[in-house]
Amino acid sequence: MLYPNKIKKESKSNISYANRGMDLEYLINEANKYYLDNDIAVIYKKPTPIQINKVSFAKGMPEVVKGKFNQKSTLDYVGLYKGKYLDFDAKKTLNKTSFPLENIHSHQIKHIERIIKHGGIAFLLIEICGELYYFPGEKLIDFIRLEKRKSIPYNYIKEHGYMIKYSYCPVIDYLKIIEQLYFKKERD
Amino acid sequence: MLYPNKIKKESKSNISYANRGMDLEYLINEANKYYLDNDIAVIYKKPTPIQINKVSFAKGMPEVVKGKFNQKSTLDYVGLYKGKYLDFDAKKTLNKTSFPLENIHSHQIKHIERIIKHGGIAFLLIEICGELYYFPGEKLIDFIRLEKRKSIPYNYIKEHGYMIKYSYCPVIDYLKIIEQLYFKKERD
Repeated sequence: MLYPNKIKKESKSNISYANRGMDLEYLINEANKYYLDNDIAVIYKKPTPIQINKVSFAKGMPEVVKGKFNQKSTLDYVGLYKGKYLDFDAKKTLNKTSFPLENIHSHQIKHIERIIKHGGIAFLLIEICGELYYFPGEKLIDFIRLEKRKSIPYNYIKEHGYMIKYSYCPVIDYLKIIEQLYFKKERD
Repeated sequence: MLYPNKIKKESKSNISYANRGMDLEYLINEANKYYLDNDIAVIYKKPTPIQINKVSFAKGMPEVVKGKFNQKSTLDYVGLYKGKYLDFDAKKTLNKTSFPLENIHSHQIKHIERIIKHGGIAFLLIEICGELYYFPGEKLIDFIRLEKRKSIPYNYIKEHGYMIKYSYCPVIDYLKIIEQLYFKKERD
């Protein structure tokens, strides 16, 4: 059982819920399951790309016995909300002053640019200082183009991103931000 | 080098291009690469879902040494075209009179229903009798709901689907159908 107020309080005192075994990926999956079960959106995590080099049939069912992790060329999550294509990634940093860009590969940035160009919504969910931000892909592209810095300062994220307040069921209701940004009305 | 006329001729005489090592998946990937390179759309194949049970670090780089193939709960391809969310699967049958529905799992049908409900475009690319059809998800749902049959007759596919004529670069330009169905103007 989760108590949102408690989580909020803890996050303020810098004890992240991640320490309690509730990491960002878990909470996103929980939110996506909530959206699916309640017929709000269809959003899912893309499988990890694995280059299968050897398959065994020894146990009746095919089984991968040799596989290489391939580098991702897209983002982790893809989905559909009210006719809009969503594509995003979740990133967490323990750094308290900035978010290092080294975690985002150049082909992922190219992917974000393409998604925006073709009318989709691309964004990052950034966990920093015990807070969670919706950071628009457009702002990321702008920052990289204009700033030429290796990390995004916390204050920049605070200013250009949108804080996701922890709530109850789902704990991180990130579609609320998309609703406000793209559909201009509150869902509840 | 591909000669579309030759391929068309051959397909008519029931010698599928699949026999020449150009299977449907290859041609879809080729089309998707063309769309990406020419900045027309962003469409990609989802990685095969593999449940990783054991990873070895013996060779320096992490390597999967035990992995199970999970059943797909979505379709094979996902993408974005002119702001529209696309989700589709490619199916081929050697059966000349009908397309057996046993190849589509019930959770994939549920997925198609959800995509349509939330404003996305879901469809199948069906290769049958040496011809390729764009078969709308709506027609598939209708057929399953109304007909209660175990396979879709070839004539039904011909009547309710849209034949994709083989062309040159890409060989199967399936976005042409989407353009006609959803944007009501010819792209070329």
